[in-house]
Amino acid sequence: MPPTVIGAREAPPEAGRLLLKRAQRECEPVLRTAVGWISGPLATMAGYHLGWWDTNGQGSGSGSGKSIRAALVLGAAAACGDTSNAAPAAAAVELMHNFSLVHDDVMDRDTVRRGRPTVWAVWGETNAVLLGDALHALSGRVLAELMAQPVAMSAVARLESACAALCAGQLEDCEFETRRAVTVDQYLQMAAGKTAGLMGCASALGALSAGANTATVSAMERFGYQLGLAFQIIDDVIGIWGDPTVTGKPVGNDLTRRKATLPVIAALNSGSDSASQLAELYRSTAPMTIADVARATELVETAGGRRAAQRYADDHIRAAMAALPDPARSADLIALAQLVISRDR
Amino acid sequence: MPPTVIGAREAPPEAGRLLLKRAQRECEPVLRTAVGWISGPLATMAGYHLGWWDTNGQGSGSGSGKSIRAALVLGAAAACGDTSNAAPAAAAVELMHNFSLVHDDVMDRDTVRRGRPTVWAVWGETNAVLLGDALHALSGRVLAELMAQPVAMSAVARLESACAALCAGQLEDCEFETRRAVTVDQYLQMAAGKTAGLMGCASALGALSAGANTATVSAMERFGYQLGLAFQIIDDVIGIWGDPTVTGKPVGNDLTRRKATLPVIAALNSGSDSASQLAELYRSTAPMTIADVARATELVETAGGRRAAQRYADDHIRAAMAALPDPARSADLIALAQLVISRDR
Repeated sequence: MPPTVIGAREAPPEAGRLLLKRAQRECEPVLRTAVGWISGPLATMAGYHLGWWDTNGQGSGSGSGKSIRAALVLGAAAACGDTSNAAPAAAAVELMHNFSLVHDDVMDRDTVRRGRPTVWAVWGETNAVLLGDALHALSGRVLAELMAQPVAMSAVARLESACAALCAGQLEDCEFETRRAVTVDQYLQMAAGKTAGLMGCASALGALSAGANTATVSAMERFGYQLGLAFQIIDDVIGIWGDPTVTGKPVGNDLTRRKATLPVIAALNSGSDSASQLAELYRSTAPMTIADVARATELVETAGGRRAAQRYADDHIRAAMAALPDPARSADLIALAQLVISRDR
Repeated sequence: MPPTVIGAREAPPEAGRLLLKRAQRECEPVLRTAVGWISGPLATMAGYHLGWWDTNGQGSGSGSGKSIRAALVLGAAAACGDTSNAAPAAAAVELMHNFSLVHDDVMDRDTVRRGRPTVWAVWGETNAVLLGDALHALSGRVLAELMAQPVAMSAVARLESACAALCAGQLEDCEFETRRAVTVDQYLQMAAGKTAGLMGCASALGALSAGANTATVSAMERFGYQLGLAFQIIDDVIGIWGDPTVTGKPVGNDLTRRKATLPVIAALNSGSDSASQLAELYRSTAPMTIADVARATELVETAGGRRAAQRYADDHIRAAMAALPDPARSADLIALAQLVISRDR
């Protein structure tokens, strides 16, 4: 997918990748402090999930996740002129995100993440639920203990509010698996809760940590929210056409489980012949074979699902750019938007 | 079980029961506000779990839980001379406790709580995990938005810290089910995380909400912690000998699942003939029949498990009373300790 909307403000994707690396670097000491607050099996599982070590707490890990949310916190803080108080907020958002990943993997029965077995696949569901709960707790504690005082309370309220929305979004996403027809609007509501809310919160927390005023914090939240919608849609595109050696997830994972992702929903609503054939594949209760997945992939494409998804993503990236309070000072955020639209994992 | 240690400071259990009722009354508006922050199926499930309505969000519910943790917050605040800021802290602790109950029921496969089907038994495991996550989020948000500022941050840090300990305790408790021999010390460490930590936190938050100094907050935490250990031990006693029409849980639930509760651990470590017979029943992998449960109940009793548990509970109640910074002003806390030692549900 070529970048399509950044236009004159375009930054090379390399800039975005460097920002992710920097965000990881700035978060890691805080994450290590937080994981140090727990001990025993939960700490081992936490470090495994975060990519620091193997299942025995030994050796080298897999490297961490993308850290896009942490980069948003730092980028928004930079756009507001002060990153010195941003690292705890960035780490708290990453902990909240990782808690949700650990629980989602249990619910979605996903056995592979970042190229390694998921926590529940190694330690069982009970331990994975408990690890998620503990990461959630660490997230709040990081803000309460490590973020500077005047804004920490507002940060906790915003982050927990995003968390509740995230739960509602995940609940809707799971319901989609048993529902016959899902509309684009229903999808966007789910994606708002599941992804956009936390990314909006990340940007808002970055602005808050820099002492920005209410209007700027709200504008940053809108930026992150719109970027989050685009991010989720592109996640769906990658879920169908992504390279498993790059994504770290099995090929055709979403189609195998007949997930109602945006390309599929757009394809099903296209009224074309391919749409009817795709609907038939999705209605069946027989397990999807490799051949079925290949055929479904083609049908989504010929029904225009991929193009439609790309169009929706472009629209939301455009809305994100329009929300930026001061584009001239927002180079990092623009580079991250560029990265989101062109990412392949 | 007659009250055994309160002695001269004895208050009738009726006083404790009135304190629980008052705590419920003071918490409920805050809990209603918090549940109002979420919507859709999660809100319906939350109100069902909290005993407000049926599975459709209609009619009358079952009444809420015991609210002992909320009563501890209010009691500690009263002992420190100011209850005006205590209700949000009490509600936050109850939300945290209820989140852990919802998740524990999933992990322990418990299908009945307070005489009604548990959340996962009605809505499935995925929804129950998500409801727990949302209640956890509401807990933090209540402190951040509704508790008075100077102490709210410290309250969040303490409550999330107790939550992480709770996760570690529940993990140990689940591990006990597959471990051959558990010692009393291992049991107490588990109970410290699983129950005492949150009850210590509840008392500390009550003191914090009243503006108490650090030494008083710490003393109150010790009181709640020791009371929590006694509470968990008596919970174990009730789990074996309690009346199911009063407890709302099935008869012999813990023994059926061969749980390593304190009466059982004490019995197994008694070196008696009954201990060997009990060990044999616990080693077997055949499902426990009703006759097995009845026999195990008798063996725990004859091996002295019940007496030993009562003795441990008395010791911890005594330690709780000794921790009270100002017994003369702590009538409510003393009444709650009295209730814990004499409770039957």
